Amino acid sequence: MRLRHKPWASDELKKRDHIVIQDPKDIAGKWKNYFGNYKKIHVEVGTGKGQFLTGMGLQHPDVLYIGVEKYQSVLYTAMERVEEAGLTNVKLLSEDVADIADFFEPGEVDQFFINFTDPWPKSRHEKRRLTYKSFLSLYERLLVPEGEIHFKTDNQGLFEYSLHSFSLYGMVINNVSLNLHESEFEGNVMTEYEEKFSKKQMRIYRCEAKYRAKN
Amino acid sequence: MRLRHKPWASDELKKRDHIVIQDPKDIAGKWKNYFGNYKKIHVEVGTGKGQFLTGMGLQHPDVLYIGVEKYQSVLYTAMERVEEAGLTNVKLLSEDVADIADFFEPGEVDQFFINFTDPWPKSRHEKRRLTYKSFLSLYERLLVPEGEIHFKTDNQGLFEYSLHSFSLYGMVINNVSLNLHESEFEGNVMTEYEEKFSKKQMRIYRCEAKYRAKN
Repeated sequence: MRLRHKPWASDELKKRDHIVIQDPKDIAGKWKNYFGNYKKIHVEVGTGKGQFLTGMGLQHPDVLYIGVEKYQSVLYTAMERVEEAGLTNVKLLSEDVADIADFFEPGEVDQFFINFTDPWPKSRHEKRRLTYKSFLSLYERLLVPEGEIHFKTDNQGLFEYSLHSFSLYGMVINNVSLNLHESEFEGNVMTEYEEKFSKKQMRIYRCEAKYRAKN
Repeated sequence: MRLRHKPWASDELKKRDHIVIQDPKDIAGKWKNYFGNYKKIHVEVGTGKGQFLTGMGLQHPDVLYIGVEKYQSVLYTAMERVEEAGLTNVKLLSEDVADIADFFEPGEVDQFFINFTDPWPKSRHEKRRLTYKSFLSLYERLLVPEGEIHFKTDNQGLFEYSLHSFSLYGMVINNVSLNLHESEFEGNVMTEYEEKFSKKQMRIYRCEAKYRAKN
């Protein structure tokens, strides 16, 4: 993704603190009832410009969507989208995904989304991939028992790697689609990337990875 | 695969009993040393016309390859291939894969291959797919501990299903390739199908699924 430097983004994000939560640590354990009464908490890691989360927020008003994105210049666009749509069930965190254990209590998150994240193709950068085992462990701690990750990417290498990583972690891989837009999958909300790549006839890969019950 | 009826195939196969083993039950537990001294036993289920097994046999003379195929008209072609190549380390069984527990002792097989088998796309035929859990359980019994299945197909639906089935069984999925002929995988031996589909620019899918150590 092309990152334009927006030196004013940080200040602007702080002004919209009803959308971009400034002290998410304070809300850990209280997300469901802090902004109303939500049935579910769904978190997208690496939320980018927020098209997916905004689309999901519109489709499912009873779910609280929380997007985590460390690049403020990108998050700014996400914030504008949420504001324009007038959505109260989509919140954004200007934070690093590696820190999310500070913002949620164990078992507080009902589902994670990982969409079109950086593939980090070099082997020496494996640990940075958001489907690496340390991240899978982090999501597991914060998820409800037998929780799920819903994962989409256009990057073949990242998808191949992630299937390996999910299975190595002992997760069950469900609803695999190796060509999402030619599949029978319904209710797909597209990300910015997805729209762009889809127009170029590139394949989109998708699967759901489910944690096993703890013994 | 188009099956031509060859009423004479059965008799011809019986005549080549040094290649098409007539009483495999008698050799159960003794394969490694029955035809020489082999380091490994590799079994292909649904071996078709035998191009893969013949190619592998030529590449690895220290491995005994055993192909299981229930359609005699197809197996006849495989037998001809093995005969023409003068291979002594490739044997064929004119048998149903569901019966293989009769032909091998537990732990006798070092590796299984599943190549371009029937996808049985209808849900009600799931149990017939050679990556269905009952087959995974059968292979596991006959394999060495932490043994592997090497799996290739051009059928997207069968590959998607099999990733699910392997992970549900608790297997680790390694070396996934979602476009084998564009990948860096070395030493690939093509099947008849693979050659045909590859020329049409269709994708070939491949992965290795490994059983976990028993507790």
